[in-house]
Amino acid sequence: MSKESWLPTLKTDTPEEGYDLAVKLARKAVGMTQPDENVRKELRPVYANNADSLTFASQVVAINFQTVAAANNYWNE
Amino acid sequence: MSKESWLPTLKTDTPEEGYDLAVKLARKAVGMTQPDENVRKELRPVYANNADSLTFASQVVAINFQTVAAANNYWNE
Amino acid sequence: MSKESWLPTLKTDTPEEGYDLAVKLARKAVGMTQPDENVRKELRPVYANNADSLTFASQVVAINFQTVAAANNYWNE
Amino acid sequence: MSKESWLPTLKTDTPEEGYDLAVKLARKAVGMTQPDENVRKELRPVYANNADSLTFASQVVAINFQTVAAANNYWNE
Amino acid sequence: MSKESWLPTLKTDTPEEGYDLAVKLARKAVGMTQPDENVRKELRPVYANNADSLTFASQVVAINFQTVAAANNYWNE
Amino acid sequence: MSKESWLPTLKTDTPEEGYDLAVKLARKAVGMTQPDENVRKELRPVYANNADSLTFASQVVAINFQTVAAANNYWNE
Repeated sequence: MSKESWLPTLKTDTPEEGYDLAVKLARKAVGMTQPDENVRKELRPVYANNADSLTFASQVVAINFQTVAAANNYWNE
Repeated sequence: MSKESWLPTLKTDTPEEGYDLAVKLARKAVGMTQPDENVRKELRPVYANNADSLTFASQVVAINFQTVAAANNYWNE
Repeated sequence: MSKESWLPTLKTDTPEEGYDLAVKLARKAVGMTQPDENVRKELRPVYANNADSLTFASQVVAINFQTVAAANNYWNE
Repeated sequence: MSKESWLPTLKTDTPEEGYDLAVKLARKAVGMTQPDENVRKELRPVYANNADSLTFASQVVAINFQTVAAANNYWNE
Repeated sequence: MSKESWLPTLKTDTPEEGYDLAVKLARKAVGMTQPDENVRKELRPVYANNADSLTFASQVVAINFQTVAAANNYWNE
Repeated sequence: MSKESWLPTLKTDTPEEGYDLAVKLARKAVGMTQPDENVRKELRPVYANNADSLTFASQVVAINFQTVAAANNYWNE
């Protein structure tokens, strides 16, 4: 496991950190598809001001959170 | 587990509280993407009056409810 | 478990009742996002006469049915 | 289990029958949202001739097939 | 298990064959909704040249691949 | 298991490699639907500069990552 990995583990100490990791996972694929940070910054106001785009972003976080939560056995012990 | 965490646990006493938590999870990602509460308030009538937007919101709750329900072993016992 | 809860349990006697519960779960989030029943009634003909909106509604039911079916161990025994 | 139930069980003898049941589940929610058969018939050519609508229909079947396949333990044994 | 079944089993020897089966599952529902092969052929260039339609097609394959992979216990052993 | 297989296994050494495999799975279905690499290249700027298209791409990666993560038992030994 490389120290430089952006994703060394799916384990987190708390559900909240797990949720943050889900957000990170959602954003990573966006960055891999559009590597230009300037373009991503220009797009941000587009979807941050559109109701359906915000729901869509929340959906992808929800899917990733399913994965992270399962990986942590839902933080039950 | 910090007292200030917005998500200290995925455990709830009842399915209904679990559903409420799923709604909270869905809204959290929206708030992280659009932190400006005023903008979110302006967007609310847009999606609250659009049939597909309402279905979309329900979909994200459904995905999060899958996670919360599994975390609570579906409240069996 | 409150008697007044709209969701006291995910358990149902039959798959058909489980499907009805999935429909209820899908509608609940819509009602929480748009609490005005009159608005929801006005929106009904919009999506009930649109093919993709109907498919979308069916999708949310399908996601919720996954949860309900798992909670009932797929009604095996 | 009522004889008249449209969904007496999620069990099927074969994967193919399970897939047919997934299609039935997808259509059921459409029929519950739009009970008028004539309207549904009018909508059919709309989505049956639209590529994305067909993909969407296939998606809902896929989600339901996940449920049916799990209920049948993927027909292993 | 009928010899003529288009889906006699969810088991495949390799992940790659499992992925092909997921594609087959995705296409089957399309064919059941639009049985006319000529119409489907006419629609092909529409979605094959549209970025979001291609992503959508990939999504349905992904959902079906979840089912097939689980049915094969992820080809572990 | 053929050496030439594009998908010999779902196992990866690390979560990061698993995420890369999820991206690969998402792209594979696109390539199977639109085999012409030139067309795909032309489409790339279309979705790489559209916020919702990027979210959509991230969603399909998320679904595939669920599969890969489960196949690796979430990299918990």
